[in-house]
Amino acid sequence: MADDVDLAQSVAPEELSALDRMPMRDAEGDIRPEFVEAISHAVQVADTAFLKEIVGELHEADLGDLIEALDADERAPLIELTGTDFDFSALNEVDDTVREELLEELEPETVAEGVRELDSDDAVELLEGVDEEVQDEILEKLPLSERVALERSLTYPENSAGRRMQTEFIAVPPDWNVGQVIDYMRETPDLPDRFYEIYSVGADQRWQGAVSLDALLRARRPVLLADLIDEDRRRVSVLDDQEEVARMFGKYNLVAAPVVDTDDRLVGVITIDDVVDVIEEEADEDLKALGGVTSDEELSDNFWTIAKGRFTWLLINLATAFIASSVLGLFEDQLQQMVALAVLAPIVASQGGNAATQTMTVAVRALATRQLNPNNAMRIVIREGLVGLINGLAFAVITGIAAYAWFRTPGLGIVIGLAMICNLIAGALGGILIPMVLERVKADPAVASGTFVTTVTDVVGFFAFLGIATLWFGLK
Amino acid sequence: MADDVDLAQSVAPEELSALDRMPMRDAEGDIRPEFVEAISHAVQVADTAFLKEIVGELHEADLGDLIEALDADERAPLIELTGTDFDFSALNEVDDTVREELLEELEPETVAEGVRELDSDDAVELLEGVDEEVQDEILEKLPLSERVALERSLTYPENSAGRRMQTEFIAVPPDWNVGQVIDYMRETPDLPDRFYEIYSVGADQRWQGAVSLDALLRARRPVLLADLIDEDRRRVSVLDDQEEVARMFGKYNLVAAPVVDTDDRLVGVITIDDVVDVIEEEADEDLKALGGVTSDEELSDNFWTIAKGRFTWLLINLATAFIASSVLGLFEDQLQQMVALAVLAPIVASQGGNAATQTMTVAVRALATRQLNPNNAMRIVIREGLVGLINGLAFAVITGIAAYAWFRTPGLGIVIGLAMICNLIAGALGGILIPMVLERVKADPAVASGTFVTTVTDVVGFFAFLGIATLWFGLK
Repeated sequence: MADDVDLAQSVAPEELSALDRMPMRDAEGDIRPEFVEAISHAVQVADTAFLKEIVGELHEADLGDLIEALDADERAPLIELTGTDFDFSALNEVDDTVREELLEELEPETVAEGVRELDSDDAVELLEGVDEEVQDEILEKLPLSERVALERSLTYPENSAGRRMQTEFIAVPPDWNVGQVIDYMRETPDLPDRFYEIYSVGADQRWQGAVSLDALLRARRPVLLADLIDEDRRRVSVLDDQEEVARMFGKYNLVAAPVVDTDDRLVGVITIDDVVDVIEEEADEDLKALGGVTSDEELSDNFWTIAKGRFTWLLINLATAFIASSVLGLFEDQLQQMVALAVLAPIVASQGGNAATQTMTVAVRALATRQLNPNNAMRIVIREGLVGLINGLAFAVITGIAAYAWFRTPGLGIVIGLAMICNLIAGALGGILIPMVLERVKADPAVASGTFVTTVTDVVGFFAFLGIATLWFGLK
Repeated sequence: MADDVDLAQSVAPEELSALDRMPMRDAEGDIRPEFVEAISHAVQVADTAFLKEIVGELHEADLGDLIEALDADERAPLIELTGTDFDFSALNEVDDTVREELLEELEPETVAEGVRELDSDDAVELLEGVDEEVQDEILEKLPLSERVALERSLTYPENSAGRRMQTEFIAVPPDWNVGQVIDYMRETPDLPDRFYEIYSVGADQRWQGAVSLDALLRARRPVLLADLIDEDRRRVSVLDDQEEVARMFGKYNLVAAPVVDTDDRLVGVITIDDVVDVIEEEADEDLKALGGVTSDEELSDNFWTIAKGRFTWLLINLATAFIASSVLGLFEDQLQQMVALAVLAPIVASQGGNAATQTMTVAVRALATRQLNPNNAMRIVIREGLVGLINGLAFAVITGIAAYAWFRTPGLGIVIGLAMICNLIAGALGGILIPMVLERVKADPAVASGTFVTTVTDVVGFFAFLGIATLWFGLK
């Protein structure tokens, strides 16, 4: 990034900040080990002044990275030592595992103090991850009004807009003019930290419309707010799923959206930074699910937690591998008569598995982005079937020639070629239909698709190859 | 979304817009087939008035969806019929394949007319996808100043910040006060369509700092701009990779960032909506690469294009499958003596492949988000090795018992168990080391990892199982 390059200006050393003297990151943007060591040392000798200076200068995101880079037993002391200088929103930048451990270790008073400084959405995000017990302990230490607001937000379902919204926003009557709004903002000390639009609300807090700040700044003071309202502007319901909200932001290029309750009263606002987190989370989840990893696995987890988490999918895979092998078992006698079949069978299965994975990947992604929908489903299924057929024919020829060249058995090339065609069509159809069925029954198409799809191609591959071979060579 | 629910208010029918009378989407948000048919009919009978009304009301994103939903031969006529009422930014919302076809079909005059109405970043996005020849034809039709600006943007490398930025922004001298800035915005008719911050530039257009609109609105008129500059604000260089830019936006919660050239002159601004597109594109690419699909495959491609695109990875997979099977081939005699080995060998390979895929998925994602870096690489590799060992032990026991129960051959359980341990450790290490090596040699870790990683587990699985079996049972 360009902002890292030209720090070297002629500044007297005493004017340099702690971070200028000791930069956090190297040229690649990775954290310098010397930096972490210096902080770690300062924590050990309780050099509060130095720590406060550093912590005060760091952006919350960098502070989060620092927390993760420290040893686990130095994290809580750093926060306790820097107290109110520590920005608790940094804790939303670290892995869940790290955050939970930390919040349980810290004094509830320290956490409550930190939570009070946060925007409501950051506070909810921080609290929703911890045990109910710890959560209650922290909430108890908060002033009544803040506690009630947070508790209400926490009653909304997980992953809903209500959980993601911040309850700080600017709402004014629709009959105000631009001048009144600007004066109001200049005179009100307690505005939200960042905002991109203001809302007009009628009686009963009912939402009327949104005006973006640039529209406000272009207009002259006497212009009525009602005239600036963006008709295209969309709103979100507290109960909407965060994924739906993210899709709307992406589609209509929003930076903020008002959140209304079931009576259309304005209760909060969702901003693009939260949506970016949601988009990244969802992409993460899809990728992990396709790879057979649970979505809560994190890089900071220890090997034992990870091994346990991955065990389930491996166990399911083992069961399906036994099913596939049992098909081989059915043909034990034929395999004994012609061992080339045992050597070649995994090739048919593997090629089908790969073709199926290709189709499945595209299907899962298209379902997630709603590009694949009832309007085009039939067309896509037919298309995938054709793709399977074409590549099946191509690989029938290639594999057939290679197999004949290897074993010099007349007919073996034809047998494996026919099996290849069957399995690539089966893979293509399995790859699209299994995710579509999972979506239809409201299961996540990314989860489970992988293992089941390759089971289909293993079973069909073994069965087609050995079955055709049995017939062709007249094996008993 | 809440905005779809209560359209039914008491409005006289003649006041209803075309979209109110005939909504585009159903309750699920999918496009109604009746809507597409009505448009399609209007295109055929050239009902220009109706089409202009609809096209004028639709958001660009919805207009893009409509284009995709129409038959290929109705798309260009719709645009030609609606002319200047058609918002060309809708073309950035459709698949590349659809867009390219359309732009080649439309009259260059129509396209040039449409491009003139676009923000510079949208214009660049539209033009960068088409053939050089068509591009030149369109550029020729533009006024000189716009042509020069677009041509300059197109000289920046693909996927760079220079390609993504818009060149419309607000820059004022740092010695202005808030009042002057607000007056300037009220008096200047030709401001950018949307903006979130204004920039302060010194002599020579050199960038000095950014002020967010909310900071501007909170401050009183005499306050100097220089006092409002956000010290934390980061800037981007034209040559920065878009992925780096997206990471910075996500990390520091930005909605806009100034883009400077190599002399630190302000030349453009990147906004969060472009970044959201980048984040989605990159997630898409990673997912597709892991699934063995090229990143330019799109849902609108025909089966022939897709089959060709997927052929390469399938061919590579076939080659690696033959390598794995050649290991089986080495043990032909042993397989003939003990056919149970042929039946069970794929289980060892499959289980290793799955464990490796789990590790690889996490590694690829962690590398993409830079969570996995030189600071923690060693720790993560050791951890994955331990995960492989633990699950290897667990599945050695389970598979060993199952294999013995199936074939009742003493020792077979121990042999498959030992092979399982070897292969799960090999899979874990291959799953993390292969992506890391690819990253080190500047190759995309998502591409190629999958096939190579499962080749490792196929080869190790077959070799370990049959090798140990040969020794244990004294096969020749």
